[in-house]
Amino acid sequence: MQLLTHATLAGMDAESNGYGLIENGALVIEGERIVWIGAAAELPTRFSGATRHDLGGRLVTPGLIDCHTHIVFGGDRAREFEMRLEGASYEEISRAGGGILSSVRATREADEATLLASALRRVDHLIAEGVTTIEVKSGYGLDIATEMKMLRVARLIGETRAIHVETSWLAAHALPPEYKDDRAGYIRDVVIAGLDAAHAEGLVDAVDGFCEGIAFSRDEMASIFDHAARLGIPVKLHAEQLSDLGGALMAAQRGAISADHLEYLGADGIAEMAESGTVAVLLPGAFYTLRETKLPPMQGLREAGVPIALATDCNPGTSPLTSLLLTMNMGATLFRMTPAECLTGVTRHAAKALGLTDRGRLAAGMRADLAVWDVGHPAELTYRIGFNPLHKRIFGGEID
Amino acid sequence: MQLLTHATLAGMDAESNGYGLIENGALVIEGERIVWIGAAAELPTRFSGATRHDLGGRLVTPGLIDCHTHIVFGGDRAREFEMRLEGASYEEISRAGGGILSSVRATREADEATLLASALRRVDHLIAEGVTTIEVKSGYGLDIATEMKMLRVARLIGETRAIHVETSWLAAHALPPEYKDDRAGYIRDVVIAGLDAAHAEGLVDAVDGFCEGIAFSRDEMASIFDHAARLGIPVKLHAEQLSDLGGALMAAQRGAISADHLEYLGADGIAEMAESGTVAVLLPGAFYTLRETKLPPMQGLREAGVPIALATDCNPGTSPLTSLLLTMNMGATLFRMTPAECLTGVTRHAAKALGLTDRGRLAAGMRADLAVWDVGHPAELTYRIGFNPLHKRIFGGEID
Ligand SMILES: [Zn+2]
Ligand SMILES: [Zn+2]
Repeated sequence: MQLLTHATLAGMDAESNGYGLIENGALVIEGERIVWIGAAAELPTRFSGATRHDLGGRLVTPGLIDCHTHIVFGGDRAREFEMRLEGASYEEISRAGGGILSSVRATREADEATLLASALRRVDHLIAEGVTTIEVKSGYGLDIATEMKMLRVARLIGETRAIHVETSWLAAHALPPEYKDDRAGYIRDVVIAGLDAAHAEGLVDAVDGFCEGIAFSRDEMASIFDHAARLGIPVKLHAEQLSDLGGALMAAQRGAISADHLEYLGADGIAEMAESGTVAVLLPGAFYTLRETKLPPMQGLREAGVPIALATDCNPGTSPLTSLLLTMNMGATLFRMTPAECLTGVTRHAAKALGLTDRGRLAAGMRADLAVWDVGHPAELTYRIGFNPLHKRIFGGEID
Repeated sequence: MQLLTHATLAGMDAESNGYGLIENGALVIEGERIVWIGAAAELPTRFSGATRHDLGGRLVTPGLIDCHTHIVFGGDRAREFEMRLEGASYEEISRAGGGILSSVRATREADEATLLASALRRVDHLIAEGVTTIEVKSGYGLDIATEMKMLRVARLIGETRAIHVETSWLAAHALPPEYKDDRAGYIRDVVIAGLDAAHAEGLVDAVDGFCEGIAFSRDEMASIFDHAARLGIPVKLHAEQLSDLGGALMAAQRGAISADHLEYLGADGIAEMAESGTVAVLLPGAFYTLRETKLPPMQGLREAGVPIALATDCNPGTSPLTSLLLTMNMGATLFRMTPAECLTGVTRHAAKALGLTDRGRLAAGMRADLAVWDVGHPAELTYRIGFNPLHKRIFGGEID
């Protein structure tokens, strides 16, 4: 048994709307779990024999959760980024092999070891910021073998590092060139057939899709979600990023655990999400990179009581972002979220966006995934830009 | 003598407008200086006895230079940031002790050791990103003793860490409450008298000011600059951040080494800066934090040939930013600078903004301040967000 003492605890419990701060707090860990949390003065005597760790007054939060990433991919798109800034047209970039299909090509060509090594460099940046759970999507394969390879690599991340990985099947990310005249064929032969195969191999924790004019329609996504439901797999959706297609509404009607992006979300989608408990996952890194000006409907989401999460959307095209702390600052600066909303968005609500009930807040019974910070007040985590005050990360009760 | 070999060198030399890339390059260091740089195949035999360091194909750039910071200050403003996002009015924040005067109060109260310790945490983040030279301003004292204390702490940073520090006297940052009805008195008794005292102690490398409606007028700054000229100290100016007061024009007419911010800079200011060789120091962290929408006149600056630098503006109010790599990404994403312009902006042009001629590019005779990066192409330094690919930093030829 381990006792963390002389700590300020930000419990992020559902009762308080803020941090749920406990000054002069204590927290007891047994194995992988938290078994007690409260004011040090009220520590039951049965825990007095636990190994004591004095945290020197530091802040303890739940380990951070990045609930939306595309962190496994081949190649990078730095030259494409540069060409665009040098004034190259979309056509020139396309001719030079740029765009999402360049990531598809590079991901198809890369073997698992190469994909894992490049993903781990990015994952290690998240770990260094106190992240203990990440979600990883497929979606740069667009064929069954590569989509499955991506999710195998995602699982390997969790075996190689002290971090928990949730996977999402995102074959419905884009239409590959070989199916450009056969959308139905792609959905049937790759998205659905591949989902069956990946599910059989235990690779799929959720099914995702990109519902947009340039990707898949609401009806196409609905048919895929209906198949996921038959397999008993939760669903989530990239929705309303560039236009309002009613994707979030459709997803919420199917009990989606999250709808993500949401800049163009309307009132009907908000109401349905509130009704179904679907988490709104906001991705300010993509908003920033694309210089989007349309803000997600913050006030509407708040008033309806939709839980709001924040994630990096780490991907090589529209959000080459590997800092969840910076994502929190962007949530505040760009979306005007309060620091408490930002921290809730990468802890309690991020867990909910992944359908996980055993993490994201500090309470007896929860996993002992913790971050210990060298800050005086939790608002500092959101306030600073490009600064990492992590003192120590605790994963599953393991204290180095 | 030391030989860096098996490296891609980004020389950032003035001849090429880009990176000045040398593939398969070699670089020879003797003591604190670079003595030779070129293609490995052309390495003169007289260097063949040098201690060899194989860089494994990595990228070498000049050490990065952050040419505009307020990195020494007391306290922080996280709670003020939070209150604003929670909807507090300017008055409520002011009543709660917020705003620049809260930093002034905290800086006056803090002793040198406290100021140094808090600044070093921020400086260490810059060092971890390959920064080898920073500028540090006074400006949170607004009395002679505290302004001098700040610059003494700035000097101590350079003595405590392997980094070079340039100082700027910024007593003309804001008008303190005790002089609120006596602007002329403040300029005479604190800005000018303090400059004489600080200069006598060797604390001042440049004189700076904040030329803005809420701070000091162009004529007030001109009188301060005229005094700096009598002392033989270079000048620079916070100008045209919120409105066009002609500050950059006035500064350039006095041969300023830089004019900084510049969102509202007009054509006459650009022309004068080009004429005088004044560097335009852009500060996208403040632009981002203030959600400014008026962009600096990028095309005008480029067409006139004004050298453009980028800096963090690290400060507790409008840019609590401690990442120069993120600043480069912001320069590209927010100001549409090319990655080559961004890298030039934190190397060659940043050196020029500080009046330093012995760093900022790789050439024989330059200081051996270098950054070695785990990237395939220099554009990656700007492309990634919240990722630090530094492999090794070399300061004054010291290779760990
Ligand atoms: Zn995404
Ligand atoms: Zn400044």
